[in-house]
Amino acid sequence: MLNAREAVLRLKEYHPPLGGRAGLRLDFNENTAGCSGHVLARLRALDPEELNKYPERDPVERTVADFLGVRPEQLVLTNGVDEGIHLLCETYLEPADEVLLVVPTFSLYEIYAAATGATVICIQAEDGFRFPTQAVLNRVSARTRLIAVANPNNPTGAVAPEADLLQLTAAAPQAALLVDEAYFDFYGHTLLPRIGQTPNLFVTRTFSKAYGLAGLRAGVLAGAADQMRMVRRVASPYNVNAAALACLPVALADTGYVADYVAQVRRGRDRVRRELQALGVASWPSEANFVLMLIGDKRKAFVEAMRQRGILVRDRHHDPGCAGCVRLTVGTDEQTERAMAALREALVEIDWRKPEAAGAAL
Amino acid sequence: MLNAREAVLRLKEYHPPLGGRAGLRLDFNENTAGCSGHVLARLRALDPEELNKYPERDPVERTVADFLGVRPEQLVLTNGVDEGIHLLCETYLEPADEVLLVVPTFSLYEIYAAATGATVICIQAEDGFRFPTQAVLNRVSARTRLIAVANPNNPTGAVAPEADLLQLTAAAPQAALLVDEAYFDFYGHTLLPRIGQTPNLFVTRTFSKAYGLAGLRAGVLAGAADQMRMVRRVASPYNVNAAALACLPVALADTGYVADYVAQVRRGRDRVRRELQALGVASWPSEANFVLMLIGDKRKAFVEAMRQRGILVRDRHHDPGCAGCVRLTVGTDEQTERAMAALREALVEIDWRKPEAAGAAL
Repeated sequence: MLNAREAVLRLKEYHPPLGGRAGLRLDFNENTAGCSGHVLARLRALDPEELNKYPERDPVERTVADFLGVRPEQLVLTNGVDEGIHLLCETYLEPADEVLLVVPTFSLYEIYAAATGATVICIQAEDGFRFPTQAVLNRVSARTRLIAVANPNNPTGAVAPEADLLQLTAAAPQAALLVDEAYFDFYGHTLLPRIGQTPNLFVTRTFSKAYGLAGLRAGVLAGAADQMRMVRRVASPYNVNAAALACLPVALADTGYVADYVAQVRRGRDRVRRELQALGVASWPSEANFVLMLIGDKRKAFVEAMRQRGILVRDRHHDPGCAGCVRLTVGTDEQTERAMAALREALVEIDWRKPEAAGAAL
Repeated sequence: MLNAREAVLRLKEYHPPLGGRAGLRLDFNENTAGCSGHVLARLRALDPEELNKYPERDPVERTVADFLGVRPEQLVLTNGVDEGIHLLCETYLEPADEVLLVVPTFSLYEIYAAATGATVICIQAEDGFRFPTQAVLNRVSARTRLIAVANPNNPTGAVAPEADLLQLTAAAPQAALLVDEAYFDFYGHTLLPRIGQTPNLFVTRTFSKAYGLAGLRAGVLAGAADQMRMVRRVASPYNVNAAALACLPVALADTGYVADYVAQVRRGRDRVRRELQALGVASWPSEANFVLMLIGDKRKAFVEAMRQRGILVRDRHHDPGCAGCVRLTVGTDEQTERAMAALREALVEIDWRKPEAAGAAL
């Protein structure tokens, strides 16, 4: 009888709540405005010759490398950041290895790491979801082979100081440090310029968030050239599709589009936090395109009341340390206006009261 | 210092000869006519709402399952067949396992299998590239965990009898038998209806060949529902992009387009073999959209002479048992006409003579 590997038999399944998603989708941290018009025009100009041949990644990798200020051999384009994480795990992790994650965080690190048979060690963030640098350092051992950090983090929006992240690369030279910068555009700080001098640092970027191309699946995994040569060995040469490859250079060139969208998101998240504070709803500082708020016991009723008002938000109650929390993606000015109007009504409808002792840990 | 796993350090790199590919591309077994016009229209009607959200695979999986006559839980859509092979290797293979391949065959089986650390055992095809059923059976051991067979095979066009493939599933119940039917449309026989009764059989299909969608990256991996549940665990929920998901139902619905293209390819491959025979060039029977021919020592000059006439063909000299061989993809009637005219000129230009003892093994 054919059996999957032990690590796969034990693996959690990841079922994000897709399924139609009718309404204003503030539940997946996507761009909510649609992509640049120039990108759409390029997509519509795709000709059959671009579709019927295998996609050629190299020329676009050179364009993306130029844009990011790294060398082409320091990055690989991936089928979304998911694939970048997957390839990194496959390149480095063996069953005897340990992986350190700071939780709560993006689910796929644990899934891809555990799929290799490696032991995943979850370290709880400090109060206010601050990055627990000392706790991570304390768990580094000779077996540590990967430390994965989303920066800004999801679902909290918290960031880790650059110096602390670099301290980890030095403390665990035998491990890959993955800094997932999916939300970089809403934050502005990056470790990408460090990949040249830091042989075990990897940085991911995505076009699914600020650029509005989640559907096209395009991510970047960057690291030292010697390491990337290993990562490329386990990737398909045709991993990124022709539509994404055609659109990326156009998306990068339309800097005005992204700057405007990012400005709206940054305004929006300040406004959301201010209004939540006025309403007595605790929330956490965010450098990403979402705000995590503490609703408490009535979170399910709240998510449903929002849905009835045409606004989808995401229940994060089951994330470690996030009991009672709901995450709201921030979009355009107009969407923030709508979302907050719905939120005020929803709180009234569910007869919301500030949870006992809430905010103590903020 | 960070080191890749041993299996990755030892892994071959796969660099297909892309890089511009100017001319009539008869070198990658793609559809050479462009996809259905309806597919192109659907692609051009993609709206920003489809691009900025994460792609939802499930509804399209139901459509594809219906089309293929299997249940949705028996298949997963993949980012091209490459990813299907990759997921299968990741789900089942461990370093102690053995993988049996019949060579020559598609390169990626060996790469993805070896990446897991499993031992890859290559078994040479019989004379005329016939499937070496008994030799494969002789190599089955308790450690055999995967047997991968392209059917029709690439680069030979040869097929394995269904009864022989089923015999392998019975002889190695602890192993996955992957039957890669990428070229199914040009052949017409399939093991897909057998997945319900054969718990260790997997079948792949692609939309990169007959359907002309190689650029969009869409493949199918099908198998018993219990097994597919394991495979899904190691796949990203967002592995197939929105452009591919939008186009697949339209591509499946335009049965006339595929039937016409396949008819041209089948006529074309008969014509190519007939004309090669008349020219004294040995070739092998093919059930796929290409013909493998024996050029001999002058194969490099031949490939270059074809290129100068605007026709790209693929040197397969380095494939096991393919010394002196060149592979020609067969496209439309008009393209076959052009290719054969160029081929006749090229043979004259390189002063081609039938290789000594050629054809003995045909």
